[in-house]
Amino acid sequence: MTSTAGHRVRMTPGDRRDQLLDLGVRLLSTRSVDELSIDVLAEEAGISRGLLYHYFGSKQGFHRAVVRQAADDLIRVTAPPAEGEPLERLARSLEAYVDYVVSNFAGYTSLVRAAAGGDEALREIYEEARAALTDRIFDVAAADGNLLEAFGIADTPSTRLLARGWSAMTEDVVMAWVREPAGVAKAELLHLLAAALPGVLAGSTTTAGQARP
Amino acid sequence: MTSTAGHRVRMTPGDRRDQLLDLGVRLLSTRSVDELSIDVLAEEAGISRGLLYHYFGSKQGFHRAVVRQAADDLIRVTAPPAEGEPLERLARSLEAYVDYVVSNFAGYTSLVRAAAGGDEALREIYEEARAALTDRIFDVAAADGNLLEAFGIADTPSTRLLARGWSAMTEDVVMAWVREPAGVAKAELLHLLAAALPGVLAGSTTTAGQARP
Repeated sequence: MTSTAGHRVRMTPGDRRDQLLDLGVRLLSTRSVDELSIDVLAEEAGISRGLLYHYFGSKQGFHRAVVRQAADDLIRVTAPPAEGEPLERLARSLEAYVDYVVSNFAGYTSLVRAAAGGDEALREIYEEARAALTDRIFDVAAADGNLLEAFGIADTPSTRLLARGWSAMTEDVVMAWVREPAGVAKAELLHLLAAALPGVLAGSTTTAGQARP
Repeated sequence: MTSTAGHRVRMTPGDRRDQLLDLGVRLLSTRSVDELSIDVLAEEAGISRGLLYHYFGSKQGFHRAVVRQAADDLIRVTAPPAEGEPLERLARSLEAYVDYVVSNFAGYTSLVRAAAGGDEALREIYEEARAALTDRIFDVAAADGNLLEAFGIADTPSTRLLARGWSAMTEDVVMAWVREPAGVAKAELLHLLAAALPGVLAGSTTTAGQARP
């Protein structure tokens, strides 16, 4: 990536917009959505506010485009490797997620908070990203019938709900751990979260009243 | 509870404030924190805005007092029964939680969103309530050494982190379920969440690499 600060590069409007979005995402990694203004972007990119309004329409349009880009980046960097054992592929994806949250903590926190806030469009982008991350569990597992069997699960509304829950748990635990590791090493954290997934899903096959396997 | 709308009751200022807070919490059950204004409360309580500012200082003070009261209510109604088998006590507490979220969905959603929003005081109240709910798992389990043994856990930073994660999962799953039950009955939901707790905590005792028990 080339620096956009202080000099102009001849490029197509589409390329230019992508470059501005990349810059917006980088700025978001250390500040909240609310602190991400057209003014800050204009200063960092060395271009006029008017041109930014031309690209993004409004501050809200800019926020949505940046949050969409950040969500796409998250989905991309946490893509499981195409090859390998399913549990190993999920473990690699989980580690990439933890690394992403560590590297982009302020921006990720901001994304989660923005999703909970008043802007319905930001919430939808966040929910779509969450759904994409959760669906992967089933995609990877479905690619290997033995894994579904190993987890003892079928793809039902209740297992989808539980997978979503595991994803929420992971988000909450990783964010709590980044704020306060409490002596828990990253390898242990990854292990705990990976081990929790079959633990969570296994509940969907035991009968009511048998809380323990 | 007596209705406060349309008539005055002679009571102490402390009683009066409590009554206004109860009304605020009831109003919160069907609207967001942002929609909960001094004006709405004044109209519902049949008293002047000036008097409400006297009690709560500001709109922000009013919001904090109502959210604090809502959090206290949540902790109170979900208190596990004092007697019984530990897993049964936790199951009863979980059911009370689900019932609370169902009955107060708008207000609870609002509480969760407010906690994620910009007001640090609201976030703290929410975090305290979450911590209180999570600590119970250990309080109940610690009251019965066999339960800790049955879960195969010790009270360590990593199990505290996982219990917090289970609590986040529960919140997310219950809210998703209320919005879209997808054919999952309440009894099944309760079973899935209760079964997930030992499933989540069990991970803390297996060694790295052994994701499955």
